[in-house]
Formats: sequence, structure tokens, C-alpha cells
Amino acid sequence: MPRRKRRASRTRSTATTASRGSVEVSEADVSFRSMTPSQFFYEYREVAGFGSPSRALYQTVRELVENALDATDVHGILPDIYVAIERLPENPNYYRVTVEDNGIGIDPKHVPYAFGQVLYSSKYRLRQARGRFGLGAKMAILYGQIKTGRPVEVYTSPLRSRKVYFFKIMIDIEKNQPIVLARGEFPNPSRWHGTRVSVVIEGDWPRARHRVYMYMQRTAIAAPYANITFIDPDGNITVYSRKIRKLPPKPKEVKPHPHGVDIELLKQLIKKSGASTLFEFLIEAFQGVGKKTAKSFLEFAGLEENLDPHKLSDKQLEHLARKLREFPKFRSPSADALSPFGPDIIEAGLRAILKPEFVVAVTRRPRAYEGHPFIVEVGIAYGGEIPVSNEPMLLRYANKIPLLYDEKADVAWKVVDPNNFDWKSYLVNFPAPIAVLTHIASTKVPYKGVGKESVADVPEIEQELRNALREAVRRLRDYLLKKLREEEARKRIATFMKYTPEVAKSLATILGPMGVKEEEVREMLLVAMKRRLGLSEDEFSKLVEGLEVSIEE
Amino acid sequence: MPRRKRRASRTRSTATTASRGSVEVSEADVSFRSMTPSQFFYEYREVAGFGSPSRALYQTVRELVENALDATDVHGILPDIYVAIERLPENPNYYRVTVEDNGIGIDPKHVPYAFGQVLYSSKYRLRQARGRFGLGAKMAILYGQIKTGRPVEVYTSPLRSRKVYFFKIMIDIEKNQPIVLARGEFPNPSRWHGTRVSVVIEGDWPRARHRVYMYMQRTAIAAPYANITFIDPDGNITVYSRKIRKLPPKPKEVKPHPHGVDIELLKQLIKKSGASTLFEFLIEAFQGVGKKTAKSFLEFAGLEENLDPHKLSDKQLEHLARKLREFPKFRSPSADALSPFGPDIIEAGLRAILKPEFVVAVTRRPRAYEGHPFIVEVGIAYGGEIPVSNEPMLLRYANKIPLLYDEKADVAWKVVDPNNFDWKSYLVNFPAPIAVLTHIASTKVPYKGVGKESVADVPEIEQELRNALREAVRRLRDYLLKKLREEEARKRIATFMKYTPEVAKSLATILGPMGVKEEEVREMLLVAMKRRLGLSEDEFSKLVEGLEVSIEE
Repeated sequence: MPRRKRRASRTRSTATTASRGSVEVSEADVSFRSMTPSQFFYEYREVAGFGSPSRALYQTVRELVENALDATDVHGILPDIYVAIERLPENPNYYRVTVEDNGIGIDPKHVPYAFGQVLYSSKYRLRQARGRFGLGAKMAILYGQIKTGRPVEVYTSPLRSRKVYFFKIMIDIEKNQPIVLARGEFPNPSRWHGTRVSVVIEGDWPRARHRVYMYMQRTAIAAPYANITFIDPDGNITVYSRKIRKLPPKPKEVKPHPHGVDIELLKQLIKKSGASTLFEFLIEAFQGVGKKTAKSFLEFAGLEENLDPHKLSDKQLEHLARKLREFPKFRSPSADALSPFGPDIIEAGLRAILKPEFVVAVTRRPRAYEGHPFIVEVGIAYGGEIPVSNEPMLLRYANKIPLLYDEKADVAWKVVDPNNFDWKSYLVNFPAPIAVLTHIASTKVPYKGVGKESVADVPEIEQELRNALREAVRRLRDYLLKKLREEEARKRIATFMKYTPEVAKSLATILGPMGVKEEEVREMLLVAMKRRLGLSEDEFSKLVEGLEVSIEE
Repeated sequence: MPRRKRRASRTRSTATTASRGSVEVSEADVSFRSMTPSQFFYEYREVAGFGSPSRALYQTVRELVENALDATDVHGILPDIYVAIERLPENPNYYRVTVEDNGIGIDPKHVPYAFGQVLYSSKYRLRQARGRFGLGAKMAILYGQIKTGRPVEVYTSPLRSRKVYFFKIMIDIEKNQPIVLARGEFPNPSRWHGTRVSVVIEGDWPRARHRVYMYMQRTAIAAPYANITFIDPDGNITVYSRKIRKLPPKPKEVKPHPHGVDIELLKQLIKKSGASTLFEFLIEAFQGVGKKTAKSFLEFAGLEENLDPHKLSDKQLEHLARKLREFPKFRSPSADALSPFGPDIIEAGLRAILKPEFVVAVTRRPRAYEGHPFIVEVGIAYGGEIPVSNEPMLLRYANKIPLLYDEKADVAWKVVDPNNFDWKSYLVNFPAPIAVLTHIASTKVPYKGVGKESVADVPEIEQELRNALREAVRRLRDYLLKKLREEEARKRIATFMKYTPEVAKSLATILGPMGVKEEEVREMLLVAMKRRLGLSEDEFSKLVEGLEVSIEE
């Protein structure tokens, strides 16, 4: 019994310790322990894409390139990005990955945390960005550190800064804290701005090569306004050069939409709010809520508009959160936070790499799931140099980043899968030469994992993808139908042509005495045929181009 | 300039704050913020399987049931588990999920953390367990809390405890700390031990129903020594009753294997170690390293055996970690930490649910990847009541838990996929009635995500799965071959039988004068045939059983 009495007080003291760091209490066969985020992601690094040397090399390139793009185009800067992978002479499995951008740079006071603390980020915001978890670059650094023992090296200079700052950083994994091994600053007379990051990791270039190149190429497709220079470990230099100078519209930060509210978010919003009534709070805290909507909602929820939001009971909070999710009359979530490709970029990209005979792209109107706005885009390329296959070639993008792994687990695959989608009724019969590009742009892409490789099948997104696919593939069908009809017309013309000389000759024999010449007869026959097939002069000459039987036979 | 001077000192103070809680520094267009683990998993709950009400309901059941099993069989207790899902009268989308076990219970001093702090667990150990991340139950609690505002309710009593302890707990998501709303204790005269957990979450039973039942059934297959009672929201009671009383061997905790070492782990092991020389340290810290191996390794690595491990430079640490991974002569990782099903459990399970005509199971010998031991098991069921399909039906298990989502992203699918595996050469021609069960048991199952739904294609595991499949399917082929041969023999016998009376009669006419009777001739012919087909008396009578043409014709 005295043992139990002591426990009550001990619990409290354990609480304090547990919150600070690592606790380990052994008893019999059971010992409990807490972990910091860095310990957790160190232990389970494979869930973030760092499970093997080849995958880690790909993932490192990807995380650093995506940070580089997020530091440029999102802020209105045309990206110039340099990527290099070097094999280190002292160990053929050690690679230095360097990525440099001309972006907005990082304020030196944030640098140690931005690179040395897991779950620290500037991207925990409601607007479209490639990065999202505050995890990627840190995972590359952590992985490099535990395998090769090398710190990350960072050079950075914010916009208009007179200095370039230099850091060497490692992560104290047990505490989730940066260890700054070195720092320095240099004058910056040329006002260079941007960030240059180098990590040394254990990698496997021969096995990663294919995916890394595929990643670079698909990134270039999605950012034709960027210059990207890539040097691989064998010294090959690839330049993906800028095709257009127009940047996509900047995504703006937005307030949360009431349909995405839960009790926790509600508490956070109230805590931050200075509003003294529920009425004011609603207007201030949420997007698209004006006085009228606020009044109408409060009526719907059966809540007094003068209630102090800071004094709501747990029960009232639950009620309010639930009613906010249920109220059907809120305006749709704003798409200001989104930045889709647009059909031009998609079509240009597909044309450039796949060299198809036909291409079409569709950008749908914004929709929402659980309060998060999203836009779906689908591009289709057909024929030309696309290889014939039993399945459509799928190029997946989410918030402009290409997704290369776990294709079959992705909602986009579910939609284009020939077992689920009736391609035949759109005149596509597999095996066929067809590629489908899908893009989901959202303030929150529902990735299945923190490695950002596949998107969950949220019903709203799945439906919208299907709608976009149908819209695009209908235009492909129109094209294929036209092609089929032309083929048919061409056949009929050919048949006609084959007999024309004979018929003309016979007719000419009959009509000759009436002064009609054989050539005139031919001309008449031709006119009759064009009229019959409903073809203009232009269409006709296009069709007969390359026909084996020529009209001059 | 003075601005920059101030920064250096500010950085340090931010560091301290950042480690404790949440920091937010706004500047121009960029604001950085840190997150606690609970904030992170609150924000990205879908990566842990809590993305929608239907999935969340399934995931909640699963996490609680797996905790219940880990509290029983792992500790040598035959599990009695009770699972109930109730629909709450006040809101048809709110469900109370209750799971009770007869396990080892939880020391009351740990209860607040075990349920109220994300990344706090007793399972961060080197032995096979269903749970692993310290995340599942907390995610269910967190999800319930943010949607319904209800705390988790826990009753628990450790083994031999005189009291039952009661708690109501919520999670302070911003701080990742438990909030204990109520606690109590009751006398425990019957010495009940175990844990009973109730959460109230937003769910979608109609959509979750199928998966929940599938999960319960597959769990029962894998734990035939458990009693599991399940009550669904419509009041249906299903009892999966104990089939055998023999528990699988308890997995033991093991020391790390040198092939799994990285610099961070090495640092941790050295920190804990009291050894004063590298030689002692190696023997003390790693599994399977004796004096001889330690000496031979140190020679291989070119390191002095008297070096103080606590005084190694960063360079030496990197060298030591790398050499530990590279040394080829360490003993294979110990399989003591593993607990496979064994062929009997697999075959019994497949027989019971699928009612096939043929079943075979294979448990392979332990192997290892990156220092983690693993055992692969494969069962095959064929024919009988298994529906004919174009693909094998796949039942995936990892550390005894069934995996139901993301099948096509799993390494097991990659191996059984008819596009990759040459089923034909084993006489299996799709469409075919075949089911494959796969089980991966390991101290570390390389899940692709924290939702534990699919396993990554680690080359060693993939290879072992393929070997196991081949081994099992070879036996299926033998069976099918035998069946084919019997079919053939049966046909030949039938043909023979058809003509026997005729031939016997003719021969009898010839041989009659020599005193040979027709019946004797028949007998001779039969003997000749059996000899020709190489059949024993037994085999023969088995084959002719049910033949249309009988020998008495």
C-alpha cells in the first residue's frame, strides 16, 4: 500500500521530465520511453523515404530541389537552380549532394533551426507549397550524419543582404536541437541572394540514376520557367533551360475554411483571436464569412452571437466545431492559395518530352475537401513517339512536384486504371500509345506518407480526377473519331479515284458527241464526290495528300 | 549592422524556447515555426491512417486490438479480448470503441503518458511486437478528442494488483502532454488484470464495416489461441473462439547486430556502456560477438583493442560504424526476438476460412537485412471454395497483424503478381482458385508508412518471399502434377476397362481349351495393367473409385 501512495506524487515528477527529453523506466518486462521527433524519424527514417542508399540519394536530391523551387517561384523569382552529385574519392559509396538556388535566402537567425531541428519550418501555412512537413531537408542531413558523420554546409544570403552567411550544422538527435559547428560571414558586393546546401550521404548512384534523371526531367516539365543545371557523379552535365519567362500566379496565404474545422483548430483560433463575441470571431477567423453568413450560421447553430468565444465550454466548442463543418451555406474555399499549371504549360511539357501526335489538357475549377481547396488538372498525350502499352503511362504531380514511387497506391492510378475506367468507350483500345498527366494542387495534398509519394483516395479528389479525365479524354475521342472518319473518307476517295479514269472514259465516250471533254467529266465527278462526303476544298486536299491513287492517274 | 549584432544572442535564446514548445517568428513573407510531435501528427493525421471517418474507425479498432494482443500473448497469457463499437444516441456519426484485454495491465504511473503523449511507448525495443511507433492508440485518442471532444477512458490493473485504476485523459496537443481529467481506484478482490480502453470518435460504420470484419477475421486466423468477442454497432455479436491452447514462443529482447549500426546508434551504445576498451565494448554491446570475433574484427578494422570507446574522435566513430557494417564474419542476427506462426497455424487458418482442396505452408529460416533478423512465411491454398480469379487472393501479415490497405504497393504483391512470377511453370494458369498468405516477422518490419499498411521492397525480404513462394508452390505443383497424372491414369484405366470384357472373352475362347477360365483372363489383364501403370493395389482402388466403368462389368 505505501508503494501505491508514493506513486501519485511520482507521476507528477515524471511528467515534467518526460516533457523535456527522454525518460526510461524499467519494471519487470515493460519499460516505457518517450522520443523526440528527431529520434522518431531517425528510428523510422524509411517512412520519410530514407530506407536504403539508393532511395536516400533520390530523396535527398528531391527534397533539396523542392526547397530551392519553393524559395524562388513562390516569391516571384525566376528560378536558376544548380544541382550536383559528386562521388567522394575516399569512399565510393559516399556522395556529396549540392543544391543552389537564387531564392529569397534564409535569415541567419533561422538557419540553425531550419536545418538542425526536425519539425521546424516556414511552410506550416495555408497556401500551396511543395514542402509541407518541415522534414525533408532535415532527413537528408540526419541520414548523412548517421552514415558518413558529415555536417550539412549552408551558404545563404537573404534578399538585399550585404553579407553571405555560412554554417556547418549537425543535429543533436536525442534533443532535436541544432549543433552549430561553424559559422561565418562574407561580404556580398554583388548582392547575390539564395541558398546553397551541401550534404554528404551514403548513396547508390547506379541504382538511383534512373529515378534521379526521371525526377529532374519531370521537374523541368513542370517548371518551364526555370533554368536547372544538373551534374551527375560521372561528370555528365544536363541543362534544362528556361522555355518561358512567365511565372505562374503566386499562391496567397488564406484563412481556414469553416468546413475544415475541428475542436483543436477552433481552440487555437480562439486563443489567437481578440474578438469578444462569437459573431466577430467568425468573421475574423474564417475565410469567406461576412456579417450575413455569420448571422445565418449562428441561427443555424442555435448560438447567441454575443457569446464570448474565450468562455465557451467544452460542450459548446464541440457543438460549434460540428455545426461549422455541417453548415451548408458557406462560400466554397478560396482558390487564391493555389497555383495550378494551366493547360498551356501541361500541353507544352507533354509535347516537348513525349512527342505525341495529339495532346490536350484540362484545368478544372476549384473544389474542396474538408475545407481544403484543390484544383485538379489532367493532360493526355496520344500517339507519335509514345510507346504502345497495355496500360496508360502515368505522370503524377502534386503541388507541382513529380511523384515517382508507389504509383499503384495512388488515387490517380485508381482513376486511370483500365480495370476501372472505360477507355474503350472513348475509342482507346489497349495496347495503345497513351500518356496521362495528373496534377493535384491544394493547400493540403492528402499524401499517404511523409515521403510524399502517393496521394490518398479522398472521394472528392477521386471524383474530380475522374471528371477531369473524362473531359480530356472526350476531346481525345473527338480527335480519334475525326481521324477514323477521315480514314474512312480517305478509303472512299481512294476507291472512287481508282474507278474515276474508267468511269470518266466511258462517260466521255457517251458525252463526247455533246462536246464534253474527258477532263471535264473527271472534274464533275470530283465535285460530286466532295459534295457527297461534305468536304471543303482544303479538307479534301489534306485527305488526298499521300493517297496512293492520285487524281492525276 | 547593429541589427545583425543583436541576432547572435537572440539565436541562443530562441534555441531554448524552441525546444520547449512552439515558436513563431514572422518576417516579410516568411515565418518559421516548430511543432511538437502531437501537433505534427494532429496536422498530418492521415499519414497514420486517420484521414477519414471510415478509415479512422477501422484504424481505431485495429490499434486497440493490436495493443491488447501485445499485452497478452507476448507475455505468455492466452488472450481473452472483447471489442465493442457502439453508435451514440446523441449523434449517429459518433461511435464509442471499447477494447478490453486480460493482459499484463499498465502501471498507473505510466498510464497518463501511455495514452496522453505521442511518441511514448514500451515497445521501442529490439523484439517482435505488433505495435512499434508509440503512436496508434494516441492517434485514436487524438482523433476522438478533436472531433467529438471526448477523453479516453482507461481501466487497468497490472498483474497481481489489489486495485483497478481508472483514468480520463485528453492530450494537450500544443505541448504533447497528457491532461488527466479524472483518476480513481477500486478494490480488485478477484485479481482481474488487463486493460480496458474506450474512445469516442467520429466514424462511418457503413463504409468501415467490410474492412473491420475482414480485419477481425484475419486477426482470428493469426491468433487461433485467442478468444475474441466482437459486438458491432447493430448489436451483432461474433465470437472467434480459441482453437488451440498453445501459445507461440515468446520473442526475447536482443542486443543490436553490428550490421545495423550507424554513427548515432554507436554513440548511444557507447554512452550507455561501462566498457573501458573497444574490445570489451564490442562484446558487451552487440549480439553474437565473442572474444574471438571481437579480436578478428578489430584486426579487420585496423583498430587498437585498448582504445577507450568514450574517447573516439568523430572520424574514428565513422570508421568504426562503417567497418561494423562491412565485416563479413559476424554471426547472423539472432532469431530469438522473433515469433513466427509456424506451418501448422497457417495451414489450419487457411483451411478454416477458405475451405480449399489443398493447402501448404512454409516457414523459412531466419535471415537479416541491415542487422534486423526476419523470418518469412508463405501459405498457399488452392481449389475447393476459393473463388476463381485472374489474380491470386493475397492475405498479408506482418508481425502477426493483417494488412488490408495498399496491397498493390506491398512487396508481397510485387512477388505474387502474375506479371512478375511465372505461375504457369508451376501449373497454375489464371484464372485460378488460389490464395497466398504471406507473413514477415521481424524486429523491424520496414513499413512504408506509420499507418502500417504496406511493407517496402527491401531486397533481402523480397528475395526471401520469392524463395518461400517457390518452395510452397513447388509442393502445389507436385500436388497438381499428381492430380493430372491420376486423371490420365484414370482415363487409361477407363479405356482399358471398356475393352476388358471383349478382350477377355476373345482370349478366353482361345485359351479355354487350355483350361483357362474367362475370369482368370480378366484377372491377368488387370494385373498386367496395374504393372504397366506402376500402381499398387491401394492406389489402383483409389483411382477406380467412382469410375463409370467398373471392373465387374
